[in-house]
Amino acid sequence: MTRRNFIEKSGNSYLAMMALGFFPEAPAKSFDLARNEKPNGKKVIILGAGLAGLASAYELGKLGYDCVVLEARERVGGRIWTIRKGTTETEIGGEKQTCQFDEGYYLNAGAARIPHHHHLTVQYCRELKIPVEIFGNLNEAGFQYSESNRGALANKRVRAREIHADMRGYLTELVAKAIDQQALDLEMSKEDVDRYVAWLREEGDLDINKKYKGSERHGYELAPGAGMRGGTIAKPYALKDIVESGLTHPAFANVGEYTFNQQPVLLQPVGGMDMIPKAFEKVVGDKVKRSCEIQEIRKTNPGVRIVYLDKKTGQKHEVKGDYCICTLPLPILKGIPSDLSGDVQRVADFVPYMETCKIGMQFKRRFWEEDDQIFGGITKTNMDITQIFYPAHGMLGPKGVLKGMYNFHGLAKKVGELSIADRQKLAFEQGSRIHPQYKDEFENAFSLAWHKIPYSKGGWGIYSDAARQRLYATMTKNDDDIYFAGEHASNLPAWMAGAFESARYAVELLHKRVSAG
Amino acid sequence: MTRRNFIEKSGNSYLAMMALGFFPEAPAKSFDLARNEKPNGKKVIILGAGLAGLASAYELGKLGYDCVVLEARERVGGRIWTIRKGTTETEIGGEKQTCQFDEGYYLNAGAARIPHHHHLTVQYCRELKIPVEIFGNLNEAGFQYSESNRGALANKRVRAREIHADMRGYLTELVAKAIDQQALDLEMSKEDVDRYVAWLREEGDLDINKKYKGSERHGYELAPGAGMRGGTIAKPYALKDIVESGLTHPAFANVGEYTFNQQPVLLQPVGGMDMIPKAFEKVVGDKVKRSCEIQEIRKTNPGVRIVYLDKKTGQKHEVKGDYCICTLPLPILKGIPSDLSGDVQRVADFVPYMETCKIGMQFKRRFWEEDDQIFGGITKTNMDITQIFYPAHGMLGPKGVLKGMYNFHGLAKKVGELSIADRQKLAFEQGSRIHPQYKDEFENAFSLAWHKIPYSKGGWGIYSDAARQRLYATMTKNDDDIYFAGEHASNLPAWMAGAFESARYAVELLHKRVSAG
Repeated sequence: MTRRNFIEKSGNSYLAMMALGFFPEAPAKSFDLARNEKPNGKKVIILGAGLAGLASAYELGKLGYDCVVLEARERVGGRIWTIRKGTTETEIGGEKQTCQFDEGYYLNAGAARIPHHHHLTVQYCRELKIPVEIFGNLNEAGFQYSESNRGALANKRVRAREIHADMRGYLTELVAKAIDQQALDLEMSKEDVDRYVAWLREEGDLDINKKYKGSERHGYELAPGAGMRGGTIAKPYALKDIVESGLTHPAFANVGEYTFNQQPVLLQPVGGMDMIPKAFEKVVGDKVKRSCEIQEIRKTNPGVRIVYLDKKTGQKHEVKGDYCICTLPLPILKGIPSDLSGDVQRVADFVPYMETCKIGMQFKRRFWEEDDQIFGGITKTNMDITQIFYPAHGMLGPKGVLKGMYNFHGLAKKVGELSIADRQKLAFEQGSRIHPQYKDEFENAFSLAWHKIPYSKGGWGIYSDAARQRLYATMTKNDDDIYFAGEHASNLPAWMAGAFESARYAVELLHKRVSAG
Repeated sequence: MTRRNFIEKSGNSYLAMMALGFFPEAPAKSFDLARNEKPNGKKVIILGAGLAGLASAYELGKLGYDCVVLEARERVGGRIWTIRKGTTETEIGGEKQTCQFDEGYYLNAGAARIPHHHHLTVQYCRELKIPVEIFGNLNEAGFQYSESNRGALANKRVRAREIHADMRGYLTELVAKAIDQQALDLEMSKEDVDRYVAWLREEGDLDINKKYKGSERHGYELAPGAGMRGGTIAKPYALKDIVESGLTHPAFANVGEYTFNQQPVLLQPVGGMDMIPKAFEKVVGDKVKRSCEIQEIRKTNPGVRIVYLDKKTGQKHEVKGDYCICTLPLPILKGIPSDLSGDVQRVADFVPYMETCKIGMQFKRRFWEEDDQIFGGITKTNMDITQIFYPAHGMLGPKGVLKGMYNFHGLAKKVGELSIADRQKLAFEQGSRIHPQYKDEFENAFSLAWHKIPYSKGGWGIYSDAARQRLYATMTKNDDDIYFAGEHASNLPAWMAGAFESARYAVELLHKRVSAG
């Protein structure tokens, strides 16, 4: 029986395809945890109402557990945070900011994209009826700007498409030439070598003589139009100029095209990433106690006892449960007195969190669209701001908020140490080199350094290969009656999928144990 | 004075940037034709209420002309046509079809995408307040399917990402090896060669030894998740297998990544492409006379006389005007008795139109999203159906309409000759090889062969290089008091931008002449 026969003969093509391994990338498990909803007599205290905490409460609720989610902030969502008019924040040791964006404009301060293959994130959007749209990660019209003291293209904005087209043109020309000179043995038949050369010509847009003489893929000096305007293709850059100017640096590589997690298509919720925590809030919001700062995590063997401060009353309280799912970011966990094992405390001590800054800048008009035809996507630089993100929503509207900076590590540390005004000045000055329109169009900004945000203290957990090997396993096991979830407790650090997958994993682990009695 | 100084010193950064050539791809002209709106005493008869006709009426109206648009169909929009529940069509010599899609689902039967750099198309969306969203042309999750009698990957669906990652891996490995063996002279300093090699490693995801051993960009056998699921990267395909199976054929090249007109980001109106003609209808609908089939185009020197058949009454009428803008597709123009010059008639005779078929197929569930994580984008095949397009809207919804075929030339001619039922059978059978779910999920379909659609008779004008040189100029000039517009009267054939740019061009030509007196 052939594959196709098998599928055709089967009553259910989906199950048949599963059996045949048609979905190798899909998770092995079904998404539906049993819907029990009868109280099972067990109480679970969840620490943190970020995505991992909310999803844990949601899944445990389906299974009949009694849950309470303790959250230090007034809002749910953790690092899934959308900055809007009136949002306020005071960083650790910092000044209070209040967002001045116009009504309807926003910045996704934390997670901003959903890879198409992040099954569980997509499935929660489906299940909780969160409308999604395409997040245009990859944009050939985005700019690259290399600050450099050498190279003809240094300190100039060039389009991503220009570098892509030219680099691929020169590369394929090299190989086609080597094949012609019989300098390469491809170990293929003549017919297949011809096919390969046809591919090289297509990949690089080589001419009939297999030379790269430029390409419309690089763009036009004057685009084709009506009348006798047939279009004038721009001259390619010299390979030497591209390399000298630093534009071949991996920092400019188009991750949107390349890495598995950023390959098109990516999605985003319509209206802001906080539509995800808001949707969870609708189904488990009644279980969340806000303004409750965790102060102690204790084992009562069996069970747990959690001490928290009610920030509104200034009173300390404690709550007891049979189990705990702890989703607190490690830099927060580290500072909390607890009975956690030495293994867990080592993870908290030795897994650093990403320093990362963002700034949302509101402009009077969407000049990146109007003047530069940029609809979503990213401009890459080697300046402190590192990247500029253009909104993939509200397109053609009157105003816009762009992300004028997204940086990491040392650059983010440096920027994070600046005052709010100086961060804005820096983003403004560096961004202006690429978009001189900043000067006329800027209205207001809101910046943040995640490593200075209370109750987060960082962007995400950074596991070196060694740390992954030595420390990570601890996050996947219970420490007596305490379980762990959050992106740092997954193999998908920094992604919402990591929070969701780890929450499902912790719930399954816990439920399996309870079910075994 | 440096470039930056100049911009900073200037009162208006946008104009200063224009002066400095900051927008080389932007059209030279402003978008705003003067708004006069006082009757100027001249009457223009516009033939056809497709985009070129509607935009002509809109722009002429701004200038104070009295316009009438004669349209053979009951609807406006021409080849900008969105098929919805209840849409009916009878092809030339064909059976009557009525669309059975559920309410809210649709197929863009004609134009489906707006390149980000098609200024005028984007500007009309802005001006007429047509909301747009991203059209996800490029999707690394899309499949490639090569029907072939040799090759290990033949007759199998593979992901675009798999082929891209592997082909680039092997290519860059070849070049890195040649550089190591000093078989290539890059004419660069040692430092720059090192930079180039770093780029090769990034471009191909080569390992530390500059070998391609596979890449997460190809995808996972089992994706990373929670617990100890660290992810298992799938093995790369052998170059030999890719080439033998025909997957390097240019038909599989990712135009979405490559050609200027299809590079990300592309846009589409929210709710269907017919939102564009509908928006024009709001501003010029009162000038459109429907069900008027053109029967004669006469010159009255000066002026024009148009004879048309009112299809509702069966009566012939004539209308006189000072000028005419003719936007009729050439295969239609060819059949109409007229006083058009020999030059014009030669264009109509010698510019063929594309044969092209599409089929919209409604399915009970969006299995391409649910099972295969495909959100928009294209699957490419070398079968008769050529391509499958997945909707970039209504994602995560309960049902979906995908475009189960989009083909050209001989393949479209062959499919166009089939009965409606046989076309559906063909699309179903070939599509099922890639998506066996068709079998369980299919509900209904609507197909069309543009070359058999009355009043269009083809997809778009095809100019060979020779025809462009010999014939095209005629379309850019007036034939006495008759002007031409439509994608065939532009250097942007097949694109809405061609219709718009040529309409603006014709209006300007006409207005300049009238203004000169």
